Amino acid sequence: MIKLTSSQNPVIKEVRSLKNKSGREERGLFFIEGSRFVGEAVKEAINAVSCAGAGILKKTADIRYIIVSDSFLGDSDSDELIDLCTGNGLKVYNVTDSLFKSVSDTQNPQGVLAVLAINIDLMNKAGQKNGILVILDSIRDPGNMGTIIRTADAAGCAGVVVTPGCVDLFNPKVLRSTMGSVFHIPVLHSASMKEAIAVCRQWGYKILASHLDGSVSLFDADLSGNTAFIIGSEAEGIGEDAINGADVLVRIPMDGRAESLNAAVAAGIMIYEAVRQRK
Amino acid sequence: MIKLTSSQNPVIKEVRSLKNKSGREERGLFFIEGSRFVGEAVKEAINAVSCAGAGILKKTADIRYIIVSDSFLGDSDSDELIDLCTGNGLKVYNVTDSLFKSVSDTQNPQGVLAVLAINIDLMNKAGQKNGILVILDSIRDPGNMGTIIRTADAAGCAGVVVTPGCVDLFNPKVLRSTMGSVFHIPVLHSASMKEAIAVCRQWGYKILASHLDGSVSLFDADLSGNTAFIIGSEAEGIGEDAINGADVLVRIPMDGRAESLNAAVAAGIMIYEAVRQRK
Repeated sequence: MIKLTSSQNPVIKEVRSLKNKSGREERGLFFIEGSRFVGEAVKEAINAVSCAGAGILKKTADIRYIIVSDSFLGDSDSDELIDLCTGNGLKVYNVTDSLFKSVSDTQNPQGVLAVLAINIDLMNKAGQKNGILVILDSIRDPGNMGTIIRTADAAGCAGVVVTPGCVDLFNPKVLRSTMGSVFHIPVLHSASMKEAIAVCRQWGYKILASHLDGSVSLFDADLSGNTAFIIGSEAEGIGEDAINGADVLVRIPMDGRAESLNAAVAAGIMIYEAVRQRK
Repeated sequence: MIKLTSSQNPVIKEVRSLKNKSGREERGLFFIEGSRFVGEAVKEAINAVSCAGAGILKKTADIRYIIVSDSFLGDSDSDELIDLCTGNGLKVYNVTDSLFKSVSDTQNPQGVLAVLAINIDLMNKAGQKNGILVILDSIRDPGNMGTIIRTADAAGCAGVVVTPGCVDLFNPKVLRSTMGSVFHIPVLHSASMKEAIAVCRQWGYKILASHLDGSVSLFDADLSGNTAFIIGSEAEGIGEDAINGADVLVRIPMDGRAESLNAAVAAGIMIYEAVRQRK
């Protein structure tokens, strides 16, 4: 374990720069926080476990280094994690609590973070996997994006496709909201909504877009085959390319007075209706 | 419209105190922000529209006063809102943008807020309404609580029951996350989970609690009659009283590697499975 004490240390400055998208893009790195999330990444990195969507891609956590704070040290769980890292050649830095807080993205940091290399998995280079896919259209809220990835993982979906206009996948709040699912399920980047739809169609997917005025109720739609759902933001709904490209516009019944559903809730309802139809 | 200029004005000090639960309880007031949300409250207050759950209670927005910032003024929408208020005897205060920012709960305030009287609707004093009820067990995340109320409204549920241990309904972030649904659907307070279950049972509701190890899959459960769902927090799940009191523990199928779902997503999936079974 290497002790770092200066806030001007290059490692500290690097992590601090990764809070912003520009810093992440410049360095090709991102970071995750919390003992459970870091622990999961370490296990992925060490075991090189191929993720749930091995048919689409093999993604392992490419950890560059770990940083732990003084107060993180000293209990058996943290010792175990650090031993696992150092025993497998992963570099671990130790900093004071105040230095840790200066690089953390959370208000009450747990005192452990990992810096990883960004691997962008391009949709048009990925292989096909059957099942349920979720295509995100201009999802700008980090919590919603992370929660949708988590739900897709829980449901055993084939993957999630991110299109331009969505919040950056490597935004700390997105990653935190996935609760680790970002390491479980393929998250593919597409150059455009048009490309995402075209590739899904090539893969034999039926493409459904959620729309408040959709002609078919979700519960009347046939979701038994390969199904890709396009999920839009609450504020703007889905864009023109999605409306024009989808095979069917489906609506979730709204019997009350609310005008829309939260995007992550809507995604959960649609994904799980597809799960139900498969049972 | 009354101009306020001092940060020590009693009205300004009052609103500032309402950001905290203790201040809200002491004064019996809460506040909401944003032109759409305030506009909805004003319409409820003026028309005294009984809410969606009129069978359970009649709730109207009891507005004490409105505060608008300088930069909110001057467009046709804001003029319309202010005319509606002053024309119906609602008091409107005008403050500078910086003074508004000092009382606002949001980072980028829209420049309009309304202060309302807290009306607690006690479950054991409410009348029955048939359909779908949602009982919240230790939901501490304000965004999740608000989103569940919004989803229950969208689905046309009979109401939402809040038990002790949940975050305060009048927390600004809870209210914001309801997107106005707090004025559409009865939100009832129960003295305990035991009482909530007992009252639901009296009303003829079947009580289902979501549990990761539930014996029945959600999709195999009969949700066609009056159905109350107990929703627990992600961190802790549902408590002993809910486990012991429920008629059935249901699980949402988890085919992937995520260990749990976000509480609001889980609620959405359950509520909408009950909606589906009614179609």
